Amino acid sequence: MKLLLLFFLIATSTISVSASNIPNQIHPLRPQSGAAGHRIPGINCLSWRLAVETDNIRDWDVVPATCENYVGHYMLGHQYRKDCDAAAAAAYEYAKSLKLKGDGKDAWVFDIDETSLSNLPYYALPENAFGAKEYNETSFQEWELKGIAPPVPATLYLYKNLLRLGYKIVFLSGKKENLRAITEKNMKNSGYHTWEKLILKQSDDSGLTALAYKSKRRTALVKAGYRILGNMGDQWSDILGLNVGNRTFKLPNPMFYIA
Amino acid sequence: MKLLLLFFLIATSTISVSASNIPNQIHPLRPQSGAAGHRIPGINCLSWRLAVETDNIRDWDVVPATCENYVGHYMLGHQYRKDCDAAAAAAYEYAKSLKLKGDGKDAWVFDIDETSLSNLPYYALPENAFGAKEYNETSFQEWELKGIAPPVPATLYLYKNLLRLGYKIVFLSGKKENLRAITEKNMKNSGYHTWEKLILKQSDDSGLTALAYKSKRRTALVKAGYRILGNMGDQWSDILGLNVGNRTFKLPNPMFYIA
Repeated sequence: MKLLLLFFLIATSTISVSASNIPNQIHPLRPQSGAAGHRIPGINCLSWRLAVETDNIRDWDVVPATCENYVGHYMLGHQYRKDCDAAAAAAYEYAKSLKLKGDGKDAWVFDIDETSLSNLPYYALPENAFGAKEYNETSFQEWELKGIAPPVPATLYLYKNLLRLGYKIVFLSGKKENLRAITEKNMKNSGYHTWEKLILKQSDDSGLTALAYKSKRRTALVKAGYRILGNMGDQWSDILGLNVGNRTFKLPNPMFYIA
Repeated sequence: MKLLLLFFLIATSTISVSASNIPNQIHPLRPQSGAAGHRIPGINCLSWRLAVETDNIRDWDVVPATCENYVGHYMLGHQYRKDCDAAAAAAYEYAKSLKLKGDGKDAWVFDIDETSLSNLPYYALPENAFGAKEYNETSFQEWELKGIAPPVPATLYLYKNLLRLGYKIVFLSGKKENLRAITEKNMKNSGYHTWEKLILKQSDDSGLTALAYKSKRRTALVKAGYRILGNMGDQWSDILGLNVGNRTFKLPNPMFYIA
């Protein structure tokens, strides 16, 4: 009888192992319930998003079709806002812990799209489906030319506090120079009233990846005597590379990837 | 009447703005429901975890008390396992896309604790509370000396596939050299039967941060002719610094932070 029970236990444990395609239980007492998040067959959208946010998945093209609804709910719901708030709160805690020199060279770098301004009204359109549809450069440029992108609230909140603390704000964007007028108007209308520099892509930057372009511009800032004390962006290409700054802050963006 | 309605709308919108402490709506049509995750007053534990995983929050000491249950459920439930699987799957997709030289120098670096081996049975003990209690070096060393840490299933799966593809595996750990015998025994018992190198901390490394120590060891690998094609760890100090490798993969760890 004991032998039968033992056989039964071995048989069931073998089945559960082969079913999950992983060879060992991580924790012998691990319950099979109580996890966060729901399960979607094939891709687990929470895991996909975490892998994107930690730069494990790179050079991805569109949001997986099975995750379109998940990403939509995330972006329009509380969690995206809360996640941005947490990033901004961590940045603010850090920013106010520093003693600034006050010589006009204490710089903080912000990206623009999906960091300072939100293109969510555009990405929420059915034809864009929160990034689950192929990127349409023409329609995105039409949207950009409207200059009506709202601010990312957490970033605006951080921006205002950084100004108050005496930081010099540098906006470093992959937008092209020909969008300067509309971008500056959009920024001011959204509450970003002042800045030290607003750097846009020049014609001789066109061959560079975002990572190389932003590294080049930050290096120029450092050569001009700025100390980049903080740097916030929604893409890893905003905060990796050269002269990234003393601390970097990653805002969430599960809608698109820029190398 | 219309004026009254207008006044009412302005009043309510003002209230909602001051309540959330952020000045603008990110999306005028954003519904107030449909978000992922539950809300915990003060700290949003999902946001805290994301901020930790994206290296926005650094040098943290213990898991916030209000997030102990959240982290416990996460670690013992499906989601931690799924998140590890997604990281390993991304790593495997990348690993098999490369054409190896096959000269014995195609290297893949793995951290050990919470990457190759899991200390979850230790951290799940009430006195450790998934990292919500202060780190106890004495009791952790007692646990280490038992040498019974199970593998992280996703990493073992990746490890086996990397071996099959021809990668040379380097384990690079912050464990000290005096733990070599028990660590090697634990690794073998957990399914990691072979490796190119298993690097442990030497006495002259004791003053270094994990980031500096691991940078130093990886630099030595590169000088010895190894090409670090991939690098996986649960801490940012495993995958930032010098010679991090062509691609890095971050496994989740909301239980502790190592600089």
